[in-house]
Amino acid sequence: MYPKPLKDLIDSFRILPGIGEKTAERLAFSCLNYDEENINFFVDSLKNVKTKITKCEICNTYTDKKICDICSNNQRNNKKICIVDDSKTLYQIEKSEKYSGKYYVLNGLISPLDGISAKEIGLEKLVDLISKNEVEEIILALKPTIEGETTSLYIKKILEKNEIKITKLASGIPLNADIEYIDNLTLQVAFDNRKEF
Amino acid sequence: MYPKPLKDLIDSFRILPGIGEKTAERLAFSCLNYDEENINFFVDSLKNVKTKITKCEICNTYTDKKICDICSNNQRNNKKICIVDDSKTLYQIEKSEKYSGKYYVLNGLISPLDGISAKEIGLEKLVDLISKNEVEEIILALKPTIEGETTSLYIKKILEKNEIKITKLASGIPLNADIEYIDNLTLQVAFDNRKEF
Repeated sequence: MYPKPLKDLIDSFRILPGIGEKTAERLAFSCLNYDEENINFFVDSLKNVKTKITKCEICNTYTDKKICDICSNNQRNNKKICIVDDSKTLYQIEKSEKYSGKYYVLNGLISPLDGISAKEIGLEKLVDLISKNEVEEIILALKPTIEGETTSLYIKKILEKNEIKITKLASGIPLNADIEYIDNLTLQVAFDNRKEF
Repeated sequence: MYPKPLKDLIDSFRILPGIGEKTAERLAFSCLNYDEENINFFVDSLKNVKTKITKCEICNTYTDKKICDICSNNQRNNKKICIVDDSKTLYQIEKSEKYSGKYYVLNGLISPLDGISAKEIGLEKLVDLISKNEVEEIILALKPTIEGETTSLYIKKILEKNEIKITKLASGIPLNADIEYIDNLTLQVAFDNRKEF
């Protein structure tokens, strides 16, 4: 029904996560009205993201250099390492402008159900990094799921022999959230962790 | 913060309609995990949609040929023309598999407020087409807005001298809709057009 080039573009958008048929059609149609410059920019950025982005040799986050901007920034405190399981979390923390230490991106979380063991998530490199830089604090910022908790506990265990402070981001009710819509587990944690006011 | 190639791709997605910052980030990140074949397909379809898609010389809908598949299909009844204001509407009607006549895509709707006059929406070509093909029925399928109504009335007026049946898609309550959520105007129209049961 659609001319083939249009159908192909709809299919391309359709593969993206969370993009249904109607949205894919809307996006493809809007590209029909783009000028040449916009299309070329889109085309080039798609190509470049595949050819130019690699993982930082130190912390594993996405970068277009050998060492990412954060790892190569001497202004940042390299006695602190924040451990995340995903580069996206790293960028989210950077946006908060609260943290000025370094990062380490795990290659996923320990998940016996998915057959991902502790050996596969890149902890050896982390341990090397910690001893090389004489790191003083490890901040765990892993997903608050069973896999995240398991991985946090495992990291705590393997670092026990090093004399190192290990902290974990606070759990509780998000600011501005309506308590009515907070899940039970979060509410329980918020009660357990309540602070004097 | 993001490496430039990734930032560029986020910006490319961000320009698309209805794509906010978070979604653009999510889509760009997902492209990082695409294999080469997927990226190339996406890149090619973006290029092709700009270079290969034109408007059908007869009905103005998008096509990769001179004459679109619908206009060149002799199985379709060319005594009926359905008038739409947007190729998207045409595809939507095609999906319903209810209609087997031809189409004509207007170049927008008459809108004095936006400075779009009757001369600009491509009616001369429509009038030629009607007399050339000895069209028997015109089906108006324009947006149910003031501009759509104005344009429908104008088309009715200019075709008055031709002895031609002019119909308009029925207005009323959509099937499966909850009457509670139907707007007043639709409800009024639904009452006015009520049919014996």
